[in-house]
Amino acid sequence: MLTLYYAPATCALASHLALEFAGADYQAVRLDFKAQQQRSPEYLAVNPKGRVPALVTERGVLTETPALLLYIAQTFPQAGLAPLDDPFALARVNEFNSYLCATVHVAHAHKGRGYRWVDDEAAIEAMKKKVAQNMTDCFALIESRMLAGPWVLGERFSICDLYLFTLSTWLPGDGVDPGQFAKVTALRERLQQESAVRKVLALH
Amino acid sequence: MLTLYYAPATCALASHLALEFAGADYQAVRLDFKAQQQRSPEYLAVNPKGRVPALVTERGVLTETPALLLYIAQTFPQAGLAPLDDPFALARVNEFNSYLCATVHVAHAHKGRGYRWVDDEAAIEAMKKKVAQNMTDCFALIESRMLAGPWVLGERFSICDLYLFTLSTWLPGDGVDPGQFAKVTALRERLQQESAVRKVLALH
Ligand SMILES: N[C@@H](CCC(=O)N[C@@H](CS)C(=O)NCC(=O)O)C(=O)O
Ligand SMILES: N[C@@H](CCC(=O)N[C@@H](CS)C(=O)NCC(=O)O)C(=O)O
Repeated sequence: MLTLYYAPATCALASHLALEFAGADYQAVRLDFKAQQQRSPEYLAVNPKGRVPALVTERGVLTETPALLLYIAQTFPQAGLAPLDDPFALARVNEFNSYLCATVHVAHAHKGRGYRWVDDEAAIEAMKKKVAQNMTDCFALIESRMLAGPWVLGERFSICDLYLFTLSTWLPGDGVDPGQFAKVTALRERLQQESAVRKVLALH
Repeated sequence: MLTLYYAPATCALASHLALEFAGADYQAVRLDFKAQQQRSPEYLAVNPKGRVPALVTERGVLTETPALLLYIAQTFPQAGLAPLDDPFALARVNEFNSYLCATVHVAHAHKGRGYRWVDDEAAIEAMKKKVAQNMTDCFALIESRMLAGPWVLGERFSICDLYLFTLSTWLPGDGVDPGQFAKVTALRERLQQESAVRKVLALH
């Protein structure tokens, strides 16, 4: 059985949703960030980075959302969560997920985790001011150039949609109105009607 | 034929090296960052993100280093650049590459590209001060927990080694002595002896 470590309303939601859509046999273990459980010796033994998600498999612990998403898609191929037989289409998946991981997620993290990149209090405050603009720019690019529609890959649903859904839940808290992105909003609304999404969101 | 857009001494070096190791039929087109060519209308038509690398294929343009590396490995399987038949081993590849892309590269970018995340001049200066420490922490984690040795995946050479090699070339400029990381240094020295690496480095 797989074990997913998560904290509510984090990027771990994407992997949690993927496990649910895959029909995987898994358990989800919740960490309490307020109590700093991600920095406890017990958790650092699981993931020395002190972050979620982490997925415990029979062969070892995996981290990093793009890696987990593709691993879940490859381990449960019958769920059809990625175009596994087409290297170009798969590169599109990886391109999209890398962008979310390295650019969109990082833009968002400058609001609550600025201390990662700077020690100065005033600079941490200054970073917060640019988050809404950066997230708007990222989602404008996604809306206009990356989201073929109705799903990220076009007609085909994939792990990209679950990852985009996850990061889009951060927009209101980042001071961005998701309503201005029509295709993203339609994707969110379709996914919110899925029972797998409702079930996982209720835990987050 | 594939076309790689690159700029010298950027993360595009990893994809450039991978094309060379793959024995691919490709051309490399150099952008001049000093002249801001990455922001020219011509290049934005290739890659609207205004960054390198970008790989032009018969089916479209691909961006994002982890996506390019896996695409090259999958398109030239005879080069053996990734464990393509083992989803868990491949997840280790993706995990490693995601970490380099979203954490190590981003830590480095706070030195020269701080304006991405903040508008305030003093804050941009404050960010530069933490780069050496963050890069040291990242490479200490890589050295102790991620680099099995002699290669990232252990006995097996892969795209992970080319990516790690690339980001390790930034250490001296970031104020970090690479010599303190024995396994990383050994990997760098082995790769520097390869004729494919010498050939590509001469262009960068
Ligand atoms: N690149 C990683 C980032 C993981 C990450 O930053 N997770 C955040 C939650 S969204 C976290 O665990 N933060 C805890 C902390 O910084 O203490 C991924 O995509 O999985
Ligand atoms: N996530 C992208 C990042 C690409 C990136 O930031 N490239 C840098 C060079 S290392 C760039 O093109 N910078 C130009 C600029 O910011 O204007 C990847 O891994 O390929």
